[in-house]
Amino acid sequence: MQTPKKIAIVGAGLVGSLLAIYLRKAGHSVHVYDRSPDIRNIQFSGRSINLAMSNRGWKALEIIGIAQEIKKIGIPMDKRAIHTVDQDLNFQKYGKDNEAIFSLSRGILNRKMIDLAEANGVEFFFEQKVWDVSLSEAILHVGEDEKGEWKKHKFDMIFGSDGAFSRVRHRMQRQSMFNYSQEFLDIGYKELNIPANADGSHKLDKNSLHIWPRGNFMLIALPNIDGSFTCTLFMPLKGENSFEQLNNEEVLVAFFAKHFPSTTEVIPDLSKDFFKNPKSYLVTMKCFPWTHNDTVALIGDACHAIVPFYGQGMNVGFEDITVLNELMQQYGDDWQTIFTEYENLRKPNADAIAELSYRNFIEMSTKTADAHFLLQKKIEKWFSDKHPEKWIPLYSRVTFSHQPYAEALAVGDRQNEIMADILQMDHIEKIWQSEVVEHRILELLNV
Amino acid sequence: MQTPKKIAIVGAGLVGSLLAIYLRKAGHSVHVYDRSPDIRNIQFSGRSINLAMSNRGWKALEIIGIAQEIKKIGIPMDKRAIHTVDQDLNFQKYGKDNEAIFSLSRGILNRKMIDLAEANGVEFFFEQKVWDVSLSEAILHVGEDEKGEWKKHKFDMIFGSDGAFSRVRHRMQRQSMFNYSQEFLDIGYKELNIPANADGSHKLDKNSLHIWPRGNFMLIALPNIDGSFTCTLFMPLKGENSFEQLNNEEVLVAFFAKHFPSTTEVIPDLSKDFFKNPKSYLVTMKCFPWTHNDTVALIGDACHAIVPFYGQGMNVGFEDITVLNELMQQYGDDWQTIFTEYENLRKPNADAIAELSYRNFIEMSTKTADAHFLLQKKIEKWFSDKHPEKWIPLYSRVTFSHQPYAEALAVGDRQNEIMADILQMDHIEKIWQSEVVEHRILELLNV
Repeated sequence: MQTPKKIAIVGAGLVGSLLAIYLRKAGHSVHVYDRSPDIRNIQFSGRSINLAMSNRGWKALEIIGIAQEIKKIGIPMDKRAIHTVDQDLNFQKYGKDNEAIFSLSRGILNRKMIDLAEANGVEFFFEQKVWDVSLSEAILHVGEDEKGEWKKHKFDMIFGSDGAFSRVRHRMQRQSMFNYSQEFLDIGYKELNIPANADGSHKLDKNSLHIWPRGNFMLIALPNIDGSFTCTLFMPLKGENSFEQLNNEEVLVAFFAKHFPSTTEVIPDLSKDFFKNPKSYLVTMKCFPWTHNDTVALIGDACHAIVPFYGQGMNVGFEDITVLNELMQQYGDDWQTIFTEYENLRKPNADAIAELSYRNFIEMSTKTADAHFLLQKKIEKWFSDKHPEKWIPLYSRVTFSHQPYAEALAVGDRQNEIMADILQMDHIEKIWQSEVVEHRILELLNV
Repeated sequence: MQTPKKIAIVGAGLVGSLLAIYLRKAGHSVHVYDRSPDIRNIQFSGRSINLAMSNRGWKALEIIGIAQEIKKIGIPMDKRAIHTVDQDLNFQKYGKDNEAIFSLSRGILNRKMIDLAEANGVEFFFEQKVWDVSLSEAILHVGEDEKGEWKKHKFDMIFGSDGAFSRVRHRMQRQSMFNYSQEFLDIGYKELNIPANADGSHKLDKNSLHIWPRGNFMLIALPNIDGSFTCTLFMPLKGENSFEQLNNEEVLVAFFAKHFPSTTEVIPDLSKDFFKNPKSYLVTMKCFPWTHNDTVALIGDACHAIVPFYGQGMNVGFEDITVLNELMQQYGDDWQTIFTEYENLRKPNADAIAELSYRNFIEMSTKTADAHFLLQKKIEKWFSDKHPEKWIPLYSRVTFSHQPYAEALAVGDRQNEIMADILQMDHIEKIWQSEVVEHRILELLNV
């Protein structure tokens, strides 16, 4: 059991509120500060991609017994539904029969988590802007305006779960020996909406993550429990097929009719939503160290913001909490060791999922419609069914296992090398289910 | 001729004051702001590595006719002097007979440049702290304290030459689509001093850059015009042979006696200087874009801080100015095009010299004492003397030419591949001056 500490968490998002529950259950006093109004009292929409909760996320919820409750507000998606430009619909299973990822609305989930945290005794302070942090003293400087009066709040320890543009990290960044990078994709995104049918049912298969892959741009749709889908259009900011080009209603409608013909009847408010909703940007942010002495630690997007194409952003943040919790059990009151182990264990895995997420844009937008890629997936599936202990596909390692991301990435790279070799075999498209192929893969696995 | 503009420069360092001269000579009104006191009125010392001016730097001075004046305060170094641990002294020529780099004291050079700028009509505002910048309006926000009252100063255009921790960049960094990275080496440095002899002469050969290479650490010394040398000790912050270990006078003196025996008689104030002077850090900083509309541009370390091991930090900053000036001639009042061309032309070259500088620590600290490396250099020199048009060594391309850094890096990589092949030849240490080797190199150059 740990000695109770007075702990502040900056940021009441998903990672902040879940961390709050963990720390409160471990006996600490927990105050959560957030610069925004209480999300439970406001309309939440406009710039969020729906979340996909997978096994790493669920684990963090199971440990403190709230997984079942959250599952009620999620919808399982066991496959991709690929909408080709000539209106075919192909399904690609994500994993084995009982495996699925869960679509969750960020707003609904966040509200639920804050409720649960409050029920456990966590105190929330909304519309409280943290402008600065005294790292070694664990003091938050809070006020209305950056240039106005600030109040000091003193704690034993501060966690920064304040997202990709973290103020806590911002202070750490001005220390010597703090490594930092932010890198934007030249792709933006915009939220659109497929409303429910009049009877509340879904207009498309509700147990699929829908993708309209079109090369350098794509549309995706994830189901909501109210029968609607949250859609996200990803496309370049400039150049061919870009946001820059879609600058009036006529061009927009023609573009969707040409590239996404199957959406015309299911997205009624295309123009309204498109020109109302903001265009958002995609950034990969890395830094190190993640902690300062035994007083401050960053967690979630605040220390490793990634692009959304593997659906792992929330999951990696929740796994941070699982690992931190294990270290708290192991090292008790030795917070210096807890923090050092935490950052050393998590950093390589955060880097690995950043890399995987970056690569997955290519996979989703281009390869899901590519015959070569589909053949590779078929061979992998076939071989994996025959030798489940010898071949777990990369997607399954990342999504349905708890293997460290860095290991999953390394194994995945090796598997891709093997598959590149296999796809070179003569007439592979005809012989892919043969013993010859099976033996060649087994042989390559033993190299 | 350009239409005169009201221009602010933030930062009165070397790049800022030289840029001020250029802009003033082009007919603009130029105000330079610096947060520090006027360097001409204070003692300057403690944390600077001496500068090595090479051809790119000289070119920027020649164009505005101040090269000859600056040369008077520099000392040519035409070679490395390698001090081995068993007290041998080896000389390695940097280039051809008439080629040298020039040792310059940062303080003396900076004072001179500010004098020259003032003589040309540039106005300097010292101890004026810029806290923020309105990018699109070209307004500087200046005040005593970050939280105190700020005054607004409005310009047509602002240049940020305010170094690795630039405030101007800091504001740009908070825009979407601004890529940024800062990465620290785990090596620190500290300034030491070899005073002049009583008669004002130098204690070591004054036309050499002295290096005591010791693997993961090294000492260097560059001559000053007063007969002294500015020394810099580079070593890891922690671990074996690190700053962490040298924590008392006894350990320090024993360490120098063991690793740098030849310095004991020439560095009289070792302990005093070592424990008085600050330990500094080494950072590589990259970002993009470098400009905002036609109102703000970053230049020098503010957009590309590099580690000092190629002696190019000032030279790349001065070359920024040369290129900017060429674009000003070419595009006149079209500052939007000038800025866009400037950042697109310079960015790949800044990245290339960052990479070369990073690699050169290994070369200086380890390879200069390595037989394999020395043989490679001998072969390159021999071949280059025979075929000067076919082989310019990488160091010469970077230091004595104006070839874009990115090209120099690419050619250098190709040369290293060829040399790796040559060093594999049987008995290469005996036959390196043979026709066989010459023909093999010629053959490889034609691949």
